[in-house]
Amino acid sequence: MAVLSPSRRLRRTVFSDGVEAAGVKAYTVYNHMLLPTVFRSVQEDYHHLKEAVQIWDVACERQIELRGPDAGRLMQMLTPRDLRGMLTEQCFYVPIVDETGGMLNDPVAVKLGDDHWWVSIADSDLLYWIKGIANGWRLDVLVDEPDISPLAIQGPKSDDLMADVFGDAVRNIRFFRYKKLDFNGTPLVIARSGYSKQGGFEIYVPGHDGIPMALWNALFEAGKKYDVHAGCPNLIERIEGGLLSYGNDMTDDNTPHECGLGKFCDTHDALGCIGRDALLRVAKEGPVQQIRAIDIDGPAVGLCDRWWDVTANGKRVGRVSSAAYSPDYETNVAVGMIRMTHWEDGTAVQVHTPDGVRDAVVREKFWK
Amino acid sequence: MAVLSPSRRLRRTVFSDGVEAAGVKAYTVYNHMLLPTVFRSVQEDYHHLKEAVQIWDVACERQIELRGPDAGRLMQMLTPRDLRGMLTEQCFYVPIVDETGGMLNDPVAVKLGDDHWWVSIADSDLLYWIKGIANGWRLDVLVDEPDISPLAIQGPKSDDLMADVFGDAVRNIRFFRYKKLDFNGTPLVIARSGYSKQGGFEIYVPGHDGIPMALWNALFEAGKKYDVHAGCPNLIERIEGGLLSYGNDMTDDNTPHECGLGKFCDTHDALGCIGRDALLRVAKEGPVQQIRAIDIDGPAVGLCDRWWDVTANGKRVGRVSSAAYSPDYETNVAVGMIRMTHWEDGTAVQVHTPDGVRDAVVREKFWK
Repeated sequence: MAVLSPSRRLRRTVFSDGVEAAGVKAYTVYNHMLLPTVFRSVQEDYHHLKEAVQIWDVACERQIELRGPDAGRLMQMLTPRDLRGMLTEQCFYVPIVDETGGMLNDPVAVKLGDDHWWVSIADSDLLYWIKGIANGWRLDVLVDEPDISPLAIQGPKSDDLMADVFGDAVRNIRFFRYKKLDFNGTPLVIARSGYSKQGGFEIYVPGHDGIPMALWNALFEAGKKYDVHAGCPNLIERIEGGLLSYGNDMTDDNTPHECGLGKFCDTHDALGCIGRDALLRVAKEGPVQQIRAIDIDGPAVGLCDRWWDVTANGKRVGRVSSAAYSPDYETNVAVGMIRMTHWEDGTAVQVHTPDGVRDAVVREKFWK
Repeated sequence: MAVLSPSRRLRRTVFSDGVEAAGVKAYTVYNHMLLPTVFRSVQEDYHHLKEAVQIWDVACERQIELRGPDAGRLMQMLTPRDLRGMLTEQCFYVPIVDETGGMLNDPVAVKLGDDHWWVSIADSDLLYWIKGIANGWRLDVLVDEPDISPLAIQGPKSDDLMADVFGDAVRNIRFFRYKKLDFNGTPLVIARSGYSKQGGFEIYVPGHDGIPMALWNALFEAGKKYDVHAGCPNLIERIEGGLLSYGNDMTDDNTPHECGLGKFCDTHDALGCIGRDALLRVAKEGPVQQIRAIDIDGPAVGLCDRWWDVTANGKRVGRVSSAAYSPDYETNVAVGMIRMTHWEDGTAVQVHTPDGVRDAVVREKFWK
């Protein structure tokens, strides 16, 4: 493992004091901000996430706020997903594409009103793209990064813990919907969402002083009876569940269709989307390579910090971008981009890890 | 020191194999890419940089390429620096501002021709802003991240080492100019520039295979007689020299004038610059806070990983964003943003470090 040199540029979050007190062991950098990656061990965190409940500092999912008469129009320019039917209090996972259909980010859009949106971003300065588009197209909209820090509550006991702090109303929040519920007299946006398949919530926590650490402490206090621990997005669990990571599994070289995100694209109807023309052809005929689950034989693979080639009969047919050993499925679970000649479920391939070539099988579905 | 979890998203560079073999001890993340921060120790690297010559993997200074009939017009839209007199083979340090005059990046622009530019960026996805502007204003220009990785040669013996590898022509390259010189039959853009005050060059190395590590190895081989070592931007040396760091010392909250970059702004004449209207007032009247060198009393301060308040008579008058103990100047050198009431040379202030309050003095000039 490498050592990370601290600096102000790698921003601390409003929860960093809590994260340190909870014994964080490692970080990554995400949107110029610290994101914890390990507390006890990746494996121990994994088992606990599936059994209990965790509190995650995901303040690095920075928000971009769109506000003004053209906010809705701008939001539709950014994505091939048709937003016309979207209601206030809904959250939509929205691939964001440039004029060539290349992925720039895969955030969650939160509709606070027809003229008011938040975009909860993955790791790229999407603010710059949205500000550039708003300026160039002279839209009547304010685009900014508000002082809001998401805090995720994830795991099977999330509903119980959240109900103890916010009341039973939290149990009625539907998947990818939000409600505003009070904490110490301040209404907070609470969505049923999060970067795991174990269920839970994301709380959009405003400000720097007062609320963030008071909420953090209240959740840990209430969570004692549920064996609450500090946690973070878990490499193993997110691969099992097929949750993609922008920058790892996809870049601006990829279309949403290659990323298996075609179901979030209504390219024909997404009038106004900047990438629509470029995507119409691929929307009709389909991509020639696509994200797949890949099952890698043998003992636990090492950390995947660069693309691993995937070959068949000595010819390159794809590459792996994320991989980890799954204790529950007793195999190495992986994510990769595979060419259409070899993406059928059950296709045998080889994966070139730094420790040697391994047999592997392409799967159509993720594990969970 | 924290541990960094490797992943593909934190991109390795074309020189990473060499960096690892040279014994890198720590990294930061810069433009989603690994940037070494320590080889032997920050202090040992510092002394060596001032005495000998170092080879720096600064591939993370990613390039943005503008190419096409509107490339020059687009470049001028991005910056308040007047580019009309700029010649091919020149490099300009260019503050990049948004429509409010807020700094988005402080790159070096390299003019390859009237319709062909490279922008060598600091740590933000400036590509997204430039692509958004180009799209919104419907400019006739291609904007992309080419496969080019800067390699810096820094230190007083840089000319000798470079002459051994590229011939004596390299000695005639003027400051912030470049020439194309051959390496193994491939012409490389070599500029006299770099993120230190010790002199040296930046080589714009194309591609992934072949040239990058061949050049790295050739430089180390030729450099033996100059005591060459792998190095990296040095925290102490860059503060002594007043080299600012985007994200540390300035953000999009700041105008170039606040950052002491007024000399790179020709706001009145920079017709077409998107931030011109917003900057005209501040260009005329001056900013109310400005970057200053700050001399902090007492023993070596700890790592500055968050803003440290600067106060006078109990009132906040600024904040420190970077600090380190300087062996050569036998004091703690620091960079901070100071309000105009207290920015005069010699003003006594207090700096609130995590280890306690220290007496400090505001300086108008940096140490070197």
